[in-house]
Amino acid sequence: MIGLGLIGGSLLRAARESGRQVWGFTTSSVDAEAATVDGFTVESGVDGALRLARERDAIVVIAVPLPAVDKTLAAVAAHAPECVLTDVVSVKAPVEMAVRQTASRARYVGGHPMAGTTSSGWAAGSADLFRDASWVLTVEDETDVAAWRDVAQLVLDCGARIVPASAAGHDDAVARISHLPHLLAAVLAAVGADGGDLALALAAGSYSDGTRVAGTRPELVRAMCEGNRGPLLDAVDDALGRLGAARGALASTGSLGATVEAGHRGWQTLQDHRGAPREPGRIDLTAPDVREALLGLGAGGGRIVGLDGDFALTV
Amino acid sequence: MIGLGLIGGSLLRAARESGRQVWGFTTSSVDAEAATVDGFTVESGVDGALRLARERDAIVVIAVPLPAVDKTLAAVAAHAPECVLTDVVSVKAPVEMAVRQTASRARYVGGHPMAGTTSSGWAAGSADLFRDASWVLTVEDETDVAAWRDVAQLVLDCGARIVPASAAGHDDAVARISHLPHLLAAVLAAVGADGGDLALALAAGSYSDGTRVAGTRPELVRAMCEGNRGPLLDAVDDALGRLGAARGALASTGSLGATVEAGHRGWQTLQDHRGAPREPGRIDLTAPDVREALLGLGAGGGRIVGLDGDFALTV
Repeated sequence: MIGLGLIGGSLLRAARESGRQVWGFTTSSVDAEAATVDGFTVESGVDGALRLARERDAIVVIAVPLPAVDKTLAAVAAHAPECVLTDVVSVKAPVEMAVRQTASRARYVGGHPMAGTTSSGWAAGSADLFRDASWVLTVEDETDVAAWRDVAQLVLDCGARIVPASAAGHDDAVARISHLPHLLAAVLAAVGADGGDLALALAAGSYSDGTRVAGTRPELVRAMCEGNRGPLLDAVDDALGRLGAARGALASTGSLGATVEAGHRGWQTLQDHRGAPREPGRIDLTAPDVREALLGLGAGGGRIVGLDGDFALTV
Repeated sequence: MIGLGLIGGSLLRAARESGRQVWGFTTSSVDAEAATVDGFTVESGVDGALRLARERDAIVVIAVPLPAVDKTLAAVAAHAPECVLTDVVSVKAPVEMAVRQTASRARYVGGHPMAGTTSSGWAAGSADLFRDASWVLTVEDETDVAAWRDVAQLVLDCGARIVPASAAGHDDAVARISHLPHLLAAVLAAVGADGGDLALALAAGSYSDGTRVAGTRPELVRAMCEGNRGPLLDAVDDALGRLGAARGALASTGSLGATVEAGHRGWQTLQDHRGAPREPGRIDLTAPDVREALLGLGAGGGRIVGLDGDFALTV
C-alpha cells in the first residue's frame, strides 16, 4: 500500500482483516507512526516496500493523490515492474495514461472506491469504510483478466461491490454525479451568502441540502474536479445549457415547465434505478468476450458481488 | 381562513388551539368535508365567510395559490373591505401590488411561513407545522402598525418566529435560498440521468443531496418559481455568471480555486449565521421609526419571538 491516508489506510486494515499479509509506505510521518502504533508494518522507503512486493508477487495499491501518482509509478517501474497494480484515485483516464507511459509492464487495473472523504489521514480510516460501497474497476482492451480477477477479489474481501467501467466511462459518470454537484453547491453557497443575513435566516432544507458538500475541504474538491477537467467541462456545459434555457424560458414566456419536468423525471429515474429488482447472474471470466460482458454489466447499472471459480457473480 | 390546504388548514388548527374563534372557506369539497369532520366551521361560500369576518372584525387570511389571489381579493374588497388582512403565499411583491390595486382599504400585512410543502391538502396539515419555523411578515411604508401587531400575535400564537422584511427583500431572498436551489436541483437531476445507469449506480451523497428537492411535485415548484420571476431571473443570472466563470477558468487555467473557495466561504457564512449567539432585544412598536427598526432586525438575521405590551421581543 503506497499511501496510508483515509482510503489507503482503510484498505490496509480491511485487507489484513481478510487474512492477507499487508505492509505499506507513506511520506507522512504522522500516518506512518499512527499505522505502526496500530500494529501495521510500515516500510521506511517506497523502494523497499515495492521490492518486497516484487519478492512476494503482491498486489501494489497506489493510494496517493493524483499529483503524486507519476513519481510513484516511476518507483513501481523501477522496483516492482510486473506486479499486479491498482490505484484508488478518483479519476481514471489520467492514471491509466500515466501507467501506460511509465509502468507499462505492470498488470494494471484502475480502481475507485465510492466511499466517503470528508475526513482524511490514517486516523480517520476504518476497515469497514468500503462495506457495501460501489468500487469501480476499469476494463480496457489492454486489461489483463487474471490481474483484474486478483484485484476484484481484494475489493470483494473489503466488503465492496464492483462496478466495471472503462476509464473514460467512469470519468464521465463521476463528472455528472460527483464533480458537477460539488461545483453547483459552491455556486449556490456563494449566491445565497450574497443575499446577506436575511436570506440566510430564511434558508431551509432546499438550501442546506443544495450547499452541504460546499463544506468539503476546498483542496479535496479542487483535486477531484480539476483532475477530471475534460469530462467535467462537458458536464458543466450541459448544466450551463440547461440553466440558460431555463433562464430564457422564464424571461420570455414565464414558464419553467420544461426545466422542472425534466428535473423531476431525472429524479424519478434515480429512484427507479435504486428501487429496481435486479436479477442475479454470472459472467464467465474465461470467455473471449469477457471485457464486453463486464462493461455491459456496468453500463446497465449492475455490480459484481462475488467470485465463484471462473465466474463473477452479478446483480 | 380562505383556503384550507396544507398551510391554511394547519393555520386554522393552530389558531384554534391558541384559543381563537376560527372558520374557513375552501373551493375544495374534499378539504371542506375533511375540515368539517374534524370539527371546524366551513362556510359554504367565500362571501359568507368574509361577511362574518367583517361582523366580528376578524383577521382575514388568504391561503390560496397565487393564481387565485386576485379573485379572493375582489371578494375581500366587496365583503370585508377594512379587515386586517394577511396571506401565506410564497411570493410577496405581486400579492402586495394586487392588494393595493384591488383591496386597498384592507389593513394588509403580507406573510410567508417558511414551512414544509412536500404534501398538500387539509389532511396533510397539523397545528404543529409552524413550530419554531421562520415566518416573514412584510413591512412597507403603507403598513398599518396596529394591523402588523395583530398578525404578529397570530403568528407567535402558532409557535413561529417572525422575520420582518420588505416584500422585495423577501422575494430576493427566497429566490436565492429556495427557488434557485429548486432550479439547480432540476438541472443536476437531468444532467445526472443523462449519464445513464452507470452514472446513477455511482451516485452517492453529493448527488442525492443536490437533487433531493427535484422530487417535489412539479406544479408546486413551477407555481413558486414562476411567481417570483424578476428576483429569480437575477438569482439565475448570478448563478450563470459564476458557473460560466468556473467553466472559463477550468478550460483556460485548469483551476477551480476561485469558485471552490467562494463556495466554501458561503457555506461557512451559513454555519456562522446559524451558530452565532444572538442578543435578546426589544423594538418599541409605538416609535416613529418602528418600520426601520423592524426592517433592520430582519436584514441582520434577527427574529421576533414574543410581544410584551408595546414591545416586540427580539433575538
